[in-house]
Amino acid sequence: MNNPSVPEGGKAHAGNFFEDFRLGQEIRHATSRTITDGDVAVYNGLFGPRFAVQSSDTFARAVGYPRAPIDDLLVFHVVFGKTVPDISLNAVANLGYAECRFLKAVYPGDTLNAVSEVIGLKENSSRKTGIVHVRSRGFNRDGASVLDFIRWVMVRKRDENAAAPKEKIPDTAKSIDASALGAACPTIVVSRYDATLAGSPHLFGDYTAGEKIDHIDGITVEEAEHQIATRLYQNPARIHFNNFAESKGRFGRRLIYGGHVISLARALSFNGLGNAFHIAAINGGRHVAPLFGGDTVFAWSQVLARSEIAGRTDVGALRLRTIATKDRPCTDFPFKTGDDYDPAVILDLDYWVLMPR
Amino acid sequence: MNNPSVPEGGKAHAGNFFEDFRLGQEIRHATSRTITDGDVAVYNGLFGPRFAVQSSDTFARAVGYPRAPIDDLLVFHVVFGKTVPDISLNAVANLGYAECRFLKAVYPGDTLNAVSEVIGLKENSSRKTGIVHVRSRGFNRDGASVLDFIRWVMVRKRDENAAAPKEKIPDTAKSIDASALGAACPTIVVSRYDATLAGSPHLFGDYTAGEKIDHIDGITVEEAEHQIATRLYQNPARIHFNNFAESKGRFGRRLIYGGHVISLARALSFNGLGNAFHIAAINGGRHVAPLFGGDTVFAWSQVLARSEIAGRTDVGALRLRTIATKDRPCTDFPFKTGDDYDPAVILDLDYWVLMPR
Amino acid sequence: MNNPSVPEGGKAHAGNFFEDFRLGQEIRHATSRTITDGDVAVYNGLFGPRFAVQSSDTFARAVGYPRAPIDDLLVFHVVFGKTVPDISLNAVANLGYAECRFLKAVYPGDTLNAVSEVIGLKENSSRKTGIVHVRSRGFNRDGASVLDFIRWVMVRKRDENAAAPKEKIPDTAKSIDASALGAACPTIVVSRYDATLAGSPHLFGDYTAGEKIDHIDGITVEEAEHQIATRLYQNPARIHFNNFAESKGRFGRRLIYGGHVISLARALSFNGLGNAFHIAAINGGRHVAPLFGGDTVFAWSQVLARSEIAGRTDVGALRLRTIATKDRPCTDFPFKTGDDYDPAVILDLDYWVLMPR
Repeated sequence: MNNPSVPEGGKAHAGNFFEDFRLGQEIRHATSRTITDGDVAVYNGLFGPRFAVQSSDTFARAVGYPRAPIDDLLVFHVVFGKTVPDISLNAVANLGYAECRFLKAVYPGDTLNAVSEVIGLKENSSRKTGIVHVRSRGFNRDGASVLDFIRWVMVRKRDENAAAPKEKIPDTAKSIDASALGAACPTIVVSRYDATLAGSPHLFGDYTAGEKIDHIDGITVEEAEHQIATRLYQNPARIHFNNFAESKGRFGRRLIYGGHVISLARALSFNGLGNAFHIAAINGGRHVAPLFGGDTVFAWSQVLARSEIAGRTDVGALRLRTIATKDRPCTDFPFKTGDDYDPAVILDLDYWVLMPR
Repeated sequence: MNNPSVPEGGKAHAGNFFEDFRLGQEIRHATSRTITDGDVAVYNGLFGPRFAVQSSDTFARAVGYPRAPIDDLLVFHVVFGKTVPDISLNAVANLGYAECRFLKAVYPGDTLNAVSEVIGLKENSSRKTGIVHVRSRGFNRDGASVLDFIRWVMVRKRDENAAAPKEKIPDTAKSIDASALGAACPTIVVSRYDATLAGSPHLFGDYTAGEKIDHIDGITVEEAEHQIATRLYQNPARIHFNNFAESKGRFGRRLIYGGHVISLARALSFNGLGNAFHIAAINGGRHVAPLFGGDTVFAWSQVLARSEIAGRTDVGALRLRTIATKDRPCTDFPFKTGDDYDPAVILDLDYWVLMPR
Repeated sequence: MNNPSVPEGGKAHAGNFFEDFRLGQEIRHATSRTITDGDVAVYNGLFGPRFAVQSSDTFARAVGYPRAPIDDLLVFHVVFGKTVPDISLNAVANLGYAECRFLKAVYPGDTLNAVSEVIGLKENSSRKTGIVHVRSRGFNRDGASVLDFIRWVMVRKRDENAAAPKEKIPDTAKSIDASALGAACPTIVVSRYDATLAGSPHLFGDYTAGEKIDHIDGITVEEAEHQIATRLYQNPARIHFNNFAESKGRFGRRLIYGGHVISLARALSFNGLGNAFHIAAINGGRHVAPLFGGDTVFAWSQVLARSEIAGRTDVGALRLRTIATKDRPCTDFPFKTGDDYDPAVILDLDYWVLMPR
């Protein structure tokens, strides 16, 4: 049985279904993509990040970069977007991320490509879907890895009767070890890091484990905004764009790409974490609930841990949990009651940032 | 009688009316415009095209371009936009296009200018409007033509009693001959054209005349998106921007620039035509029905003809009909019943694309 | 008493309140920012300006610039945006501008920074708010001033009982003297200024004091558009982004950044002032009434004065009043009845533009 939406002999690609994946399979993704100053500007217009290193060539050069690097999350979204046509076009849900490391700074003019390896498969008991685990890698034109991450998604089967694959669920680290952080960050000349110009007086030493920060502001998301962002990443997941279909679907409307929430939370986090100029790793992320056009996103963060990085005296690492909510300010740090998230929570992100010492 | 919306002595330009045009008249258009990486990024955010040659400097260089060229339709829209203040500010309808050829690749940093020649005039029997045919040409700062096309528009008369001009309707070719295609495409090094990285296994030889392709996906258009696009092209046609006036007008709302539909259909067509990296010519186009904010656009294509290009072994040409619809998936290829278009059809575009052989 | 929205010990910044300002205080603002071709493209997509000097490197070089300079208002908004976190995050109203001069052309690749000096303070009789006057200066990485302006804002007090500062209201000039204009404009090679390519036949000598121009067109503003613009400038004023809070606030909805209206009016003014390629100074500006998403903006201008500039034969200066309205065409030049503005007026801007002679 073929996918009914693709006519016999049609050359359009309806995406891979669960039974199309094989353990160990390596998938080279389209589309090769050069990142430019233009991409940066569109991203800035959509999220308004204010971290100085990414905002200013002059600031970046002063502290040790050859020029302002591309925002880490823009790199993530572009690489992620490449994996969508092959991995998650028929996904029911994006279940999680792990072991995401930023390995090399990306600059305007760099070309990004991506490959994924299938590292886990497990059919669900319904036999209608299965879980696919992939390790995806983004690399530049010299073949150097810039980003590496694991994600797992629930993917529909084309045919419920297709045989189930041998089950394999990969072990993933709960957290990237601090010693593995910082590959994408040159040595920072801390004496030339101008905290006033960066917008925050608080450096690595000022944060303590357990500390909570309400990022105060809220940003309302418009349909045009998330569509522009997701297309900028060349992420063609249908659920974000096709209101004709989605108005009759699960949510009655378009679903916003989960990465949009991460970028909003990151931009909001500037207020309180203004010197956290680089995301070094994402330990794990969960899209607790969906976000829709018209919703207003708020965020707060907790410092889960502080760590020096072996061999580096310029920067230290903060492990953060950032919680994003919709239509609910975070003054009182909404999180969980027992195992259940506060109903307003939409994102629970566990990641490492670097900050000057 | 003057245009009542322009006060006596006012320096604002209300646009040309039908009786302002003279056969053979040459009109140099404003505004000179440099295309940049920034324009490309905004365009990508609005349409999400994924053709590898335009997306990646590295991919483009590998196959024979000096760098990634500007998307053909972005060039078209910018040149078209320049003609609007002089040709179609008082247009009732954009009736058609013919003999559109892309003559030279355009790159970031190139400056575009445009001129039009009036090649046909015919007053309508109502005496309230007339049809103006122009051949418009876009050229770069070296004066080399990058684009050449004919369009005809129905333009209001300022004064119903103004004398009718001598009637002239130009002959236009039904289709550009395949031998005239490819001027804007360098010799492609097919051995270095990586179809996996481009996102489609189907090359020129895999398509057959008559073949139909449903492009599957749908894209909902937001008001902000088409306004941003149309302004990016410096196209000031009022009907796209002024909801105060249009809410009382013909459609009760802003009308979306017809070129927006062409760009959406082109982006959708990637799914099934991923290696059709270059639009070489547009034989004809008809905006069958208007598109409005909130509508969802779908598209399908039929291969009308396949043609080799004399003297070239690197690429071949496919003549395509791409049909765009609104709020109607194209699984069953909606087109015409007799002479009448399916009521969901909004665009009927006949054009040539190049594909590696 | 602390700001209740910031928890004890929280590192997020709730902005300065009236009693935080001291006369003579100098504030260095974050975030250092490099302006790129990408920013220009996003700005163009949002406003659609068509002034040739800013649109075309080729045109700009012909007349004497090294390349197309950044739109004056984009420079203004970026510098203004930097001042917001320190000056006006707790502002009730942006009351006025004065003595704004553009001092040096800005080009893609330039990095902008900003400092402000507190030059006036006056507590209001309610004791709940006070007026803060600042002189803000934008400068490039070489430390050269590119922009200098005074603005005054009404700012909330954190604590009504805090002591009032010594009152000081600075004198500001009603208008910049014409002899002080033009620092940001190189000598224009008028013989190479192609007015057809610029889109208007009217040069400096064609305008007369008192003359009025209806700019005819209207532009409807979408929520996504003003949010993208304001974030592009890294202006984090909450009232523009947080519909959750604003829907319960003063206006029941998000307020559009006043600078958005200035940019719309400037873009509209192209029709009638197409050769007014450079804003040399803003004498004063008043946001008479708020603008909201869905409103349509119109504009008209009056020439208040014409002035030669001592020592320059290339360009002359026009002092303009541009009035913007919402949901009301400007055919009859709506302005004031006695001291009261027409209820449709939203902006009254008094500024100097340069035009080729």
